Amino acid sequence: MKKIPVGVLGATGMVGQQCISLLRNHPWFEIGYLAASPRSAGKTYKEATAGRIHFAGIADAYGGMIVHDANDASQAVKSGRCAFVFSALEMAKQEIRSLEDSYAAAAIPVISNASAHRWTEDVPVLIAEVNHGHTDIIQAQRKARGWGWGFITVKPNCSIQCYVTPLYALLQAGYEIKRLIVSTMQAVSGAGYPGVSSFDMIDNVVPYIGDEEEKSEQEPLKILGAIEGGVIRNAALPEISAHCNRVPVTDGHTACVSVEFGAKKPSIDEVKKIWADFRGLPQEVKLPMAPEQPIIIREENDRPQPRRDRDAGKAMAVSVGRLRPCNVFDLRFVGLSHNTVRGAAGGSILNAELLKHKKYLG
Amino acid sequence: MKKIPVGVLGATGMVGQQCISLLRNHPWFEIGYLAASPRSAGKTYKEATAGRIHFAGIADAYGGMIVHDANDASQAVKSGRCAFVFSALEMAKQEIRSLEDSYAAAAIPVISNASAHRWTEDVPVLIAEVNHGHTDIIQAQRKARGWGWGFITVKPNCSIQCYVTPLYALLQAGYEIKRLIVSTMQAVSGAGYPGVSSFDMIDNVVPYIGDEEEKSEQEPLKILGAIEGGVIRNAALPEISAHCNRVPVTDGHTACVSVEFGAKKPSIDEVKKIWADFRGLPQEVKLPMAPEQPIIIREENDRPQPRRDRDAGKAMAVSVGRLRPCNVFDLRFVGLSHNTVRGAAGGSILNAELLKHKKYLG
Amino acid sequence: MKKIPVGVLGATGMVGQQCISLLRNHPWFEIGYLAASPRSAGKTYKEATAGRIHFAGIADAYGGMIVHDANDASQAVKSGRCAFVFSALEMAKQEIRSLEDSYAAAAIPVISNASAHRWTEDVPVLIAEVNHGHTDIIQAQRKARGWGWGFITVKPNCSIQCYVTPLYALLQAGYEIKRLIVSTMQAVSGAGYPGVSSFDMIDNVVPYIGDEEEKSEQEPLKILGAIEGGVIRNAALPEISAHCNRVPVTDGHTACVSVEFGAKKPSIDEVKKIWADFRGLPQEVKLPMAPEQPIIIREENDRPQPRRDRDAGKAMAVSVGRLRPCNVFDLRFVGLSHNTVRGAAGGSILNAELLKHKKYLG
Amino acid sequence: MKKIPVGVLGATGMVGQQCISLLRNHPWFEIGYLAASPRSAGKTYKEATAGRIHFAGIADAYGGMIVHDANDASQAVKSGRCAFVFSALEMAKQEIRSLEDSYAAAAIPVISNASAHRWTEDVPVLIAEVNHGHTDIIQAQRKARGWGWGFITVKPNCSIQCYVTPLYALLQAGYEIKRLIVSTMQAVSGAGYPGVSSFDMIDNVVPYIGDEEEKSEQEPLKILGAIEGGVIRNAALPEISAHCNRVPVTDGHTACVSVEFGAKKPSIDEVKKIWADFRGLPQEVKLPMAPEQPIIIREENDRPQPRRDRDAGKAMAVSVGRLRPCNVFDLRFVGLSHNTVRGAAGGSILNAELLKHKKYLG
Repeated sequence: MKKIPVGVLGATGMVGQQCISLLRNHPWFEIGYLAASPRSAGKTYKEATAGRIHFAGIADAYGGMIVHDANDASQAVKSGRCAFVFSALEMAKQEIRSLEDSYAAAAIPVISNASAHRWTEDVPVLIAEVNHGHTDIIQAQRKARGWGWGFITVKPNCSIQCYVTPLYALLQAGYEIKRLIVSTMQAVSGAGYPGVSSFDMIDNVVPYIGDEEEKSEQEPLKILGAIEGGVIRNAALPEISAHCNRVPVTDGHTACVSVEFGAKKPSIDEVKKIWADFRGLPQEVKLPMAPEQPIIIREENDRPQPRRDRDAGKAMAVSVGRLRPCNVFDLRFVGLSHNTVRGAAGGSILNAELLKHKKYLG
Repeated sequence: MKKIPVGVLGATGMVGQQCISLLRNHPWFEIGYLAASPRSAGKTYKEATAGRIHFAGIADAYGGMIVHDANDASQAVKSGRCAFVFSALEMAKQEIRSLEDSYAAAAIPVISNASAHRWTEDVPVLIAEVNHGHTDIIQAQRKARGWGWGFITVKPNCSIQCYVTPLYALLQAGYEIKRLIVSTMQAVSGAGYPGVSSFDMIDNVVPYIGDEEEKSEQEPLKILGAIEGGVIRNAALPEISAHCNRVPVTDGHTACVSVEFGAKKPSIDEVKKIWADFRGLPQEVKLPMAPEQPIIIREENDRPQPRRDRDAGKAMAVSVGRLRPCNVFDLRFVGLSHNTVRGAAGGSILNAELLKHKKYLG
Repeated sequence: MKKIPVGVLGATGMVGQQCISLLRNHPWFEIGYLAASPRSAGKTYKEATAGRIHFAGIADAYGGMIVHDANDASQAVKSGRCAFVFSALEMAKQEIRSLEDSYAAAAIPVISNASAHRWTEDVPVLIAEVNHGHTDIIQAQRKARGWGWGFITVKPNCSIQCYVTPLYALLQAGYEIKRLIVSTMQAVSGAGYPGVSSFDMIDNVVPYIGDEEEKSEQEPLKILGAIEGGVIRNAALPEISAHCNRVPVTDGHTACVSVEFGAKKPSIDEVKKIWADFRGLPQEVKLPMAPEQPIIIREENDRPQPRRDRDAGKAMAVSVGRLRPCNVFDLRFVGLSHNTVRGAAGGSILNAELLKHKKYLG
Repeated sequence: MKKIPVGVLGATGMVGQQCISLLRNHPWFEIGYLAASPRSAGKTYKEATAGRIHFAGIADAYGGMIVHDANDASQAVKSGRCAFVFSALEMAKQEIRSLEDSYAAAAIPVISNASAHRWTEDVPVLIAEVNHGHTDIIQAQRKARGWGWGFITVKPNCSIQCYVTPLYALLQAGYEIKRLIVSTMQAVSGAGYPGVSSFDMIDNVVPYIGDEEEKSEQEPLKILGAIEGGVIRNAALPEISAHCNRVPVTDGHTACVSVEFGAKKPSIDEVKKIWADFRGLPQEVKLPMAPEQPIIIREENDRPQPRRDRDAGKAMAVSVGRLRPCNVFDLRFVGLSHNTVRGAAGGSILNAELLKHKKYLG
């Protein structure tokens, strides 16, 4: 199979680099186009990253490529090497929105890591194992904007990906979830590079991440929502309360979750069986980036742990552990996933594979 | 005033050392007697700690004192330098219980950091600002055991002290608390020395601490309980669900707390006023170890933080921040206190001061 | 004694804050004037630091003071509250140099933490215990520039202060030092705030700090130099080779030092005696900021350590340990000092005290 | 090719686990026999490690294997699944020595990670790229002990492996090395598990590792030595002075090295060429564990770094960087290698491959 040439917008940042690194040996896609801020335009990728390459091998593989100006979608079109783009832009939301729109308008589909379009009501927020059906909104989106081949999809915030899939598995099995109280311990890579000051992270914890709690509380409702009249209507439940904390960990977000079900409540053993058996469309059709098992149950009493479990399932699985009854709600557990792979670049690549499978790309 | 000579059992461990360090310039008490395991007995304190002294100055001040065998209460009696003891023993619970009993039987009151007697129903679990009235059980305790002057009090687990006082302040102001979901990020010093392996704490979080969640869920109910018929009866509420995590922090436990009140609910402003105004008996009678203000409110959006706030109020205050409505319960906040001072040795010294004030000591 | 009102230039940065914090209860000086970049000018100190205050208490004490524009020395003059300034400016060297000159020209002596003037040949680089005699150059400096009361002194780079004083003590005792190979492990606060990215400092070491090795190799030669013809001539020895590394430590620089003496070589015991007995002018005249003992010898085999020893002697002492023969040179040891106190703000305050003692200030 | 079944002594420790993990998909060897202390004997590997498995996948692959008593070599013989053993024993040296002897006497060659036999004069201390010729001593060793097929080889301490190969490459190219001053920053995994207390490694550095400096100074001389009269005679040079420090890093030892050559001195460019071109016997005969390039030169000014470079060349390469003239000696550089792979288990497996290639095994 001839590989599809793809572009990366925001190629020099942490998520952009992670994306490039993960695409290096991809069976379907290949890097065809790199773009970043005007400041980087015209430089080689090696020069543009100024030695700040966080992933082994990508300097050798792509260091000589010329970086283009991400503000000019027409360059991507002209290059002929950009069938669609991954957007890992780090700018003001307003700017990202119009920039992503300009690529879609230029018939270049945009698979975005950025949060800018998450609340645009006809843009799906995709977790491939959970709401792949939301890709059906793409036709309405194209029509509303007058776009032809182009469209935009986004992925949710990294903080929720360590528990939304396990909860979805329970919903799908028929257990309504009414309320959720979640406390996260999030890795510093979630803030990009240089991101969090080391002076704040040595012998310390910061019990606050800007806008993170709001995203954590609202995005799951859109993901679990339904398409109605050309837009995605939020689910009414679960009610979510999130406490988001930054901890001295490089990669891997951990969440402590207390769950209240509706009238019908699963036993611990039922939950374990549901999680162990859960497979989504990515698993059924064997998408390249899909983890064999989306939810991995750890039986040890002190797992999952970020350093030991973040790379499970090619860093694309969610590891869960400490499943036990909750004194206040019904049950509680600890969920963990790799924030820059599952929660960002890898999740986006999986979304692209899903869209390719559904004939929206290439 | 002549200082009261006191003993420290378990003088070589982390909490024992912290206790000695805090007593160094105490206005009422002075170190008169040190005891530890038979292995240390007969050695100087410097030899017994084998260079493992974690607190500046105590080697110079006490290094030459002879360490006695903690198993033999009669030595403490004979020394004439041990009006009461702080117990920071690290042994099996069963052994600690009988050992603490033997001191009390020998007319030496025991102010304990150990968890052994926390569920003995006539032993009070004291937070001086919260349930100083529980000292009234001491007479019943003495009588039941046939002890004369001796008695035992304990302090609760360090993990709960960053939120119990703020919650008590609200209870006292007339707001019933029904339910509580708490997630903690606890410092490694809580595990003693050497305690947690560095290999587990670099680039990592461990979402489990043995027995900690059980203690966190049950001890507050005893502290908030009432004396009835010579024993302390647990309070019925609040229901508590605790998620306890170990994070790479030296000192200072942080808790993310979601609170559900009864029918009557305070506003955010009322809560702030209650906390800012809260003073307990230790403040009223100006006990030496008491922080001027037991609850310190941080207004910054990213505080309290362990490294920056653990030492507030002589490391005896609870710092609270991020007070805001909870999406699921009524309100949420972050609480923080120093686990080896407020949560252990310092809390015990404050308890001793309280007992001295009430004429139970010296 | 009426306190002398002093100014702090660069008041919002890490070293500026440290300086303000250390001056809070100073017996001779009091904060009279704060200045920072034009961006901060006109704001209160609390606003200008935007919640980024790293030292307890200074927000309460100085948060309401108005911050002035550091670029305009005339404001400092007009304020009448700025007898001299501590400069903790963080800008391009060229700009700092001309700005510090403008204060000196305006009759406001400048005690600088910045490196800008370290290689100006009539500006002394002072370690108060080592080369206080270099203050004699001030007259020549004033004359050459046409300044009246104003002048400039600087302090050396923080990285060298954990070993220069111990080496000077040996020189003073008559032992020539020919060569030195030094490897440092430096704290992140040395890079200011936000400084080093946490992503670089978790589970990692960075074996490079820009310009630090050059400073470490050259500045000691000026400090050990002599005044000749109105300038300071560098000492010819020792030859120094420095390896400078950044490690995940908040405060406290550690250095591993191998020393080669001239023909006359001290024994280990002689070195210990020289260090234990060493006192400088700050100790003799009891300057307020001077540590009682400038060099503290640790006898434990695993000390000094940054977290345990950086605060020794009010964070102004140098702790040394592991003194032993060197397999290649003559002897080796580990030196440690607090980089933002002894190595920066505290060192500057001590220099100011020295200059006040010598009648150059107030 | 049928795989050779091998045993691991000390299978439950950190290095034993690392060894098992690396052998999992080995093309020549397969795990046939696991042994540990009597306490573990008879348990499954999963039980014996009590959930303390640090490497993904080995619980699944080997968890069900029965662990034998390492003290009884006859069990290994009887098993028929132990053609030779990797020794990763953690006991007193004396015991390890006699235990390793007992396996060799039982015709089971011992490839040891332990330090016990490093100074036995007919036991070679092997770095496969450096002194593979020392395997010639095996015949003399067997003869002196009356052993048949059995023999013992060891690997050097992990701390020296980040600089000995680069130095050897220069020696081999004809540049005599006279003196060396080295300062290391070593990872905590070097101390095993639980090893170093987290309380010592948060916001701290420990400038001491027991016996490490002595090993670092003496072992290279044996490795660079020559076989004479049935024993290995140490090389006379280089003189080495080592400062060994523990830093908060999980894996990867870093060394700052200053080198003095003899009369003939290479230029920086010559050194780079020698290092880039260096290949040893493992590379020539393509041993499975051999890194393609034993020495990897990093050109960035802030590399190598432990987290970013420890895994280079399958974690078997030495990364070097910051090559520059030394102010005191001739040149200096930073070397880095993975301490539990290159420096321990991986190095031993490479040694076994070398011995197999030379027909001493299987």
